Amino acid sequence: MTQRSPRLVTVVLPEMTDAQRMKIERITASYGYRVRFFRNTEDAMEFIDGTEVLFSTSAKLAASAPNLKWQCSPSAGVNQFAGCDIFTSGKAALTCSSGAYGVTIAEHIIMLILEVFRRQPEYTQIVNERRWTRNLPVRSILRSRITILGTGDIGQTTAVRLWAFQPKTIIGVNRSGKNPKDLFDRVITTGELDTVLPQTDILILSLPGTADTAHIIGKKELGLLPDNALVVNVGRGICIDQKALEEELNKKRLYAALDVFETEPIPAEDSFWACPNLLITPHVAGDTSLPYTVERIVDLFLDDFRRYAEGRPFLREVDLNRGY
Amino acid sequence: MTQRSPRLVTVVLPEMTDAQRMKIERITASYGYRVRFFRNTEDAMEFIDGTEVLFSTSAKLAASAPNLKWQCSPSAGVNQFAGCDIFTSGKAALTCSSGAYGVTIAEHIIMLILEVFRRQPEYTQIVNERRWTRNLPVRSILRSRITILGTGDIGQTTAVRLWAFQPKTIIGVNRSGKNPKDLFDRVITTGELDTVLPQTDILILSLPGTADTAHIIGKKELGLLPDNALVVNVGRGICIDQKALEEELNKKRLYAALDVFETEPIPAEDSFWACPNLLITPHVAGDTSLPYTVERIVDLFLDDFRRYAEGRPFLREVDLNRGY
Repeated sequence: MTQRSPRLVTVVLPEMTDAQRMKIERITASYGYRVRFFRNTEDAMEFIDGTEVLFSTSAKLAASAPNLKWQCSPSAGVNQFAGCDIFTSGKAALTCSSGAYGVTIAEHIIMLILEVFRRQPEYTQIVNERRWTRNLPVRSILRSRITILGTGDIGQTTAVRLWAFQPKTIIGVNRSGKNPKDLFDRVITTGELDTVLPQTDILILSLPGTADTAHIIGKKELGLLPDNALVVNVGRGICIDQKALEEELNKKRLYAALDVFETEPIPAEDSFWACPNLLITPHVAGDTSLPYTVERIVDLFLDDFRRYAEGRPFLREVDLNRGY
Repeated sequence: MTQRSPRLVTVVLPEMTDAQRMKIERITASYGYRVRFFRNTEDAMEFIDGTEVLFSTSAKLAASAPNLKWQCSPSAGVNQFAGCDIFTSGKAALTCSSGAYGVTIAEHIIMLILEVFRRQPEYTQIVNERRWTRNLPVRSILRSRITILGTGDIGQTTAVRLWAFQPKTIIGVNRSGKNPKDLFDRVITTGELDTVLPQTDILILSLPGTADTAHIIGKKELGLLPDNALVVNVGRGICIDQKALEEELNKKRLYAALDVFETEPIPAEDSFWACPNLLITPHVAGDTSLPYTVERIVDLFLDDFRRYAEGRPFLREVDLNRGY
């Protein structure tokens, strides 16, 4: 690589602490890089010309950087980079922060399951009205049959926590059928999904949004789920046919707890807001609101930074044609 | 024991399934007992005279049974029997159903912790108003320092589940200082409580209501907790000095998630309802709304029934002077 000196790293991640900034400064400096920190994309845009490494979520910023060699996205999903020529052409590399969000998303998933099973939406209403209604029938994770679509960091971190609640089964679903760290009872391929849906009490989706995963849970798949099954989605809204799900919820045949939606924000007039058996959170499962997540994002970036600076292969490189 | 024939068992537990009733019928019959099932205390009262064994929560029913030898309460706490002469005098034995509620209460505890940490009371409000506010700072069980007051079935079942979330520590507190099944990092005695409170991010109370536990968490103990610590109570309301807690919550120095209160229901005009940093559920953590709980209650009763019929000691006998 021929490069002007000093080589530049541009970072747009305002959630960082001063200690994290200093850590990035120290480690990049040890490889001869200078780093600039910005609080937002607009401020960074003005100084983007000379940057070789970009650590930000903005595809626009990446497209505006003529000397970019490597973009690391602090997010796990990389949908926003789908149209970027510099990455598909191989002019620059793209990595993601898959591995940073498992802890916060797993806790969100388990909270959502317990809230639906323990009737918390109704009890919240009851308490708001200062009433003392009790004895609504509740359900337990104990002995539940769980299927997790997506066995990456999020699926794995969730499985580890769910095992402690003594479910009957946790089955993973992925493209290869391989069982990571033996964390699942068994792992089936996406093509075999229909065989486990009729025995699924809790269906968890922790999938990226790609051409392969779009509407992976559609009308037919929802119809295969047993009565009262709970569908939890924390990946991408596109993975579920939301219209088909809305029909099942309106029939009160299924339950759903969703953090992601086909259109976000959900339009104010959308009938989905008032759907029965549905618990909504506004895409908050996997953001950077948890300090530990930011800590992990920074450490994962620095892992791959060392590899980049030493000419070794990245750990978290994204194949945009595959989508993750 | 001189007794009329057939010996009688009276059962008031309307949550039971037909299969559970038949199981009780079969096993008691194998020891020469006849069993009568009632849906409520009033109906049972009329037929209570000849009963030798009573399986109900009612102290009034127990006091009205002249031939009672053994009362099994389907609840874990036995406060309602405190004034019953027949038990304190040794005329009849009293057992409880401690061991049936761990699963349902542990799930309630973990739901409450995650709801407070993940700002779910605020997000519920946001979603109710169809807004899309995000990025409220959240917290995680990961690396949290947890102290559990009460290391019985509930404390143990909760600890097993919490370990999967990778907290920094889980310290148990009980009267003996003994560490059941090595489930805790360490177990200290109640007298040593003050030494761990300053290092406690999550304080969980799963204690019976007795003279020893009344206001075990008072103004001084609350004052020892670090800023932003979360207090969770699923045992008995009397264990916390509610007035002192209300002061800390109003200062927004601590958080609390409570299922039990000094007065239940909380009076409609009580200022506690509107307290900041407080999540209220209306004493629903440990009821019989979960079918598994009823299944366990029946099985624990039958365990002790066999022991009773064979003249062996009970597994779950209550010492009313001790209170559990």
